[in-house]
Amino acid sequence: MSHKKSYTLAEIAKRLDLKLVGDESCEIHALGTLSNAVSGQLSFLSNSSYIDQLADCQASAVILSEELAGRWSGNALIAANPYVAFAHATALFAPGNEVDAGVHPSALVAEDVQLDPSATVAAGAIIESGTRIAASAFIGPGCFVGADCIIGEASRLTANVTLYHGTVLGRQVVIHSGSVIGADGFGYAFDGKQSVKIHQLGAVRIGDEVEIGAGTTIDRGAIDDTVIGQGVKIDNQVQIGHNCHIGEHSVICGCVAIAGSARIGKYCVLGGASGVVGHLNIADGVQVSAMSLVDREITEPGVYSSGTGFMRTSQWKRSTVRFRQLDEMARKLKELEKRTDTKSTD
Amino acid sequence: MSHKKSYTLAEIAKRLDLKLVGDESCEIHALGTLSNAVSGQLSFLSNSSYIDQLADCQASAVILSEELAGRWSGNALIAANPYVAFAHATALFAPGNEVDAGVHPSALVAEDVQLDPSATVAAGAIIESGTRIAASAFIGPGCFVGADCIIGEASRLTANVTLYHGTVLGRQVVIHSGSVIGADGFGYAFDGKQSVKIHQLGAVRIGDEVEIGAGTTIDRGAIDDTVIGQGVKIDNQVQIGHNCHIGEHSVICGCVAIAGSARIGKYCVLGGASGVVGHLNIADGVQVSAMSLVDREITEPGVYSSGTGFMRTSQWKRSTVRFRQLDEMARKLKELEKRTDTKSTD
Amino acid sequence: MSHKKSYTLAEIAKRLDLKLVGDESCEIHALGTLSNAVSGQLSFLSNSSYIDQLADCQASAVILSEELAGRWSGNALIAANPYVAFAHATALFAPGNEVDAGVHPSALVAEDVQLDPSATVAAGAIIESGTRIAASAFIGPGCFVGADCIIGEASRLTANVTLYHGTVLGRQVVIHSGSVIGADGFGYAFDGKQSVKIHQLGAVRIGDEVEIGAGTTIDRGAIDDTVIGQGVKIDNQVQIGHNCHIGEHSVICGCVAIAGSARIGKYCVLGGASGVVGHLNIADGVQVSAMSLVDREITEPGVYSSGTGFMRTSQWKRSTVRFRQLDEMARKLKELEKRTDTKSTD
Repeated sequence: MSHKKSYTLAEIAKRLDLKLVGDESCEIHALGTLSNAVSGQLSFLSNSSYIDQLADCQASAVILSEELAGRWSGNALIAANPYVAFAHATALFAPGNEVDAGVHPSALVAEDVQLDPSATVAAGAIIESGTRIAASAFIGPGCFVGADCIIGEASRLTANVTLYHGTVLGRQVVIHSGSVIGADGFGYAFDGKQSVKIHQLGAVRIGDEVEIGAGTTIDRGAIDDTVIGQGVKIDNQVQIGHNCHIGEHSVICGCVAIAGSARIGKYCVLGGASGVVGHLNIADGVQVSAMSLVDREITEPGVYSSGTGFMRTSQWKRSTVRFRQLDEMARKLKELEKRTDTKSTD
Repeated sequence: MSHKKSYTLAEIAKRLDLKLVGDESCEIHALGTLSNAVSGQLSFLSNSSYIDQLADCQASAVILSEELAGRWSGNALIAANPYVAFAHATALFAPGNEVDAGVHPSALVAEDVQLDPSATVAAGAIIESGTRIAASAFIGPGCFVGADCIIGEASRLTANVTLYHGTVLGRQVVIHSGSVIGADGFGYAFDGKQSVKIHQLGAVRIGDEVEIGAGTTIDRGAIDDTVIGQGVKIDNQVQIGHNCHIGEHSVICGCVAIAGSARIGKYCVLGGASGVVGHLNIADGVQVSAMSLVDREITEPGVYSSGTGFMRTSQWKRSTVRFRQLDEMARKLKELEKRTDTKSTD
Repeated sequence: MSHKKSYTLAEIAKRLDLKLVGDESCEIHALGTLSNAVSGQLSFLSNSSYIDQLADCQASAVILSEELAGRWSGNALIAANPYVAFAHATALFAPGNEVDAGVHPSALVAEDVQLDPSATVAAGAIIESGTRIAASAFIGPGCFVGADCIIGEASRLTANVTLYHGTVLGRQVVIHSGSVIGADGFGYAFDGKQSVKIHQLGAVRIGDEVEIGAGTTIDRGAIDDTVIGQGVKIDNQVQIGHNCHIGEHSVICGCVAIAGSARIGKYCVLGGASGVVGHLNIADGVQVSAMSLVDREITEPGVYSSGTGFMRTSQWKRSTVRFRQLDEMARKLKELEKRTDTKSTD
């Protein structure tokens, strides 16, 4: 794996469609943060609170905005949105997928699998009957792809991903290691003595350009499907229950737990380790802060939270005792107000 | 994998032991929800709040109760508990395990493994020495089963499950992909400078008819065993620490974290992402709401919670500031009461 | 796998450097808890609250402190810290790694991998190009080790571990099944319409003697590396975001979620299912209680918490209503105080 790459600043400016100020022939072979970059590296300033770091920055060039360009005397790439430009720059230095297309001899692909010749099935992967794999798709080492799945063009499963039967991935989907898509939803009917399994007959459908982190689980639907909208980004160790719908371009941070049949709108952001109880609707454009529990419907965009905030345990213990007494306190307060009101009007 | 199945309504009524009202020969080839079902599908009404959906329901037949049967003029299956009847119906349409019994050529099974001829070891699975696998058991693709495990009759590991050495599964246990049973419990003795590992010498024992979701971890005991009771249902991404005991037929929802040596009673329900601290006992029949932390023993059945509830972040910030001042507020309130009492008695 | 081992008490005393009182030739073949131990087993008393269990203890010998030795008339091993001595004793009875060194025929090791002859690559493992594996290392069944990794001396991956390219492990690192080290950090730049991926160009570096539980994920850095310090112990299902630094000898309990770029000090303890928001610093020696969210910097050692504590849901509902009114209550209280003060000074 040799992914060392090098570009002149002019090449980078051209590829990212940015204005170049300074030495066009300057050779860039890596990216670096403002504080750690060394010569030969390209850095970026996207947040003006880091502007003081420009003074000592050793990078050979910096991506920054027109407004702040005057603060940097070195080579510069001028961007309307330096953070987005930086994101595009990272793609230039990312290691490519250097495995040759085709099926590794140790992989096991069922006879009737429809496999595009430009797709790759890596070592030890297992693909079951009826599955279709489109052009330029990559099935990583040790992956299991169950029967009747559809893997869209240029989608990529890294090592040790599991797709249950009937999972459908759109184009350019990325799924990281350890994730499990399409396991049975958690459904039982209690008959008074024990839990009777509700076999999960739906599937999981994942839209184009979705990325799913490591160790994430998305369950198949009970009868209808679980649906992840186009452009959704899901971090590690997220759990999405059966029959959920996640709206397009929403962002689900690490360790979020979404119970079954929840419907999350478009362009939402669920903060790390937050939770959503089942059968709730959340409007478009909602942001939920870290470790909050959404236990009611949200009909309007905005920022929402739960939790007590953080403190020394000694203080916290006193507050939690009082939390249990809150209703009593509120009623006493009301009575006191009445009593003093009466007196005031004496 | 061809799991398309079709039944007459009479066949379904007979198999589920339900009373049939209407056309016995009506052909059913799938299940559907009241709102989405089309012709040829069987639906169900288990919750009277959905009764209005009957009017427009396109299903060819509906499972419902005697009381509500008058509200539906089409074909019906009458059930004492329609939800349980529906659960049984799902089994009729679930895809079967169509892999042939026996050991796939790519699987690696140690020589001394006792493997029933009706059991299946799928592609790429690895079974280590001393393990016993009972009749009709299924070890899925890519699974690892360590040494000296016991897999009970008709138990089923889906793809990419890991069992550490000495794990014991009862009959009809199901474990979903990515789950890890029997990894070392988290035990260290701090010697003043560093953490000294306590090697985990116990194992994990799982009772009959337990189902375990995807990405769940259950640690082996330190000295004695971790024990999961018969009929327990565990969702995805649950963590169960070493030496826990989970009572029969309890239900553990997704992302629950149970610390070491906790004892959960029978027929409990731990809501999604709730937590239980270590060495606690929880009585039979306890229900814990989503994302609550059980930090004290629970000796009586009932419903328990923690957390602040959910609100706009602007309001939440003000409340959290006051939460820190709660004890002070309570003391001031008391003093005010005293003061006004004194005056009242003036 | 035959890990039945037996030692005389004299042998154990010598290996653990403990004073022996009683029968040197007493044969010990297992460890047991005070309440469950039977003859032939060695037990320990590390917490004086269990002292009453000594009376009925059936163990053939007990590890305990000089002070409490008088309470036990049987064979004893006297230890300054009985819990640490017990931890060392568990190592004597732990099953060894009995796989022969070398590469299993079913493993796939790239040609240029530098593999010490004393290292083991187990069945079905895949090692990619450029990786170096030091003496006595163990790569378990079904593991995937990406390109250009470094696996230090005597480090051990159990079954089904995934290391992305460029991951560096020190000496005597242990990683349990299902864990994923080095997946992409969760980084996107929002361009107004969609999330643009920030390719993650850093790696993960893990220090000597780190142990990582099952189903844990540690993401690679965006530009610089994610770093786990020497001696850190991480439990199951922990999520550590990109660019985090975890200080030496800290202990991270199960299901903890640490967002990107957080810096945790040395000798910290993060309780189960606690969370740390991104870009925060936590000082050395901080302890965070279970399920607390650290949403601000912590500059001093100590014990910290958040959350409301646990109660019956009926009571909890009333308290949560009042939690939303807390600021209003506080303001009313202040006003009442003013009012009564005024009157008092009348």
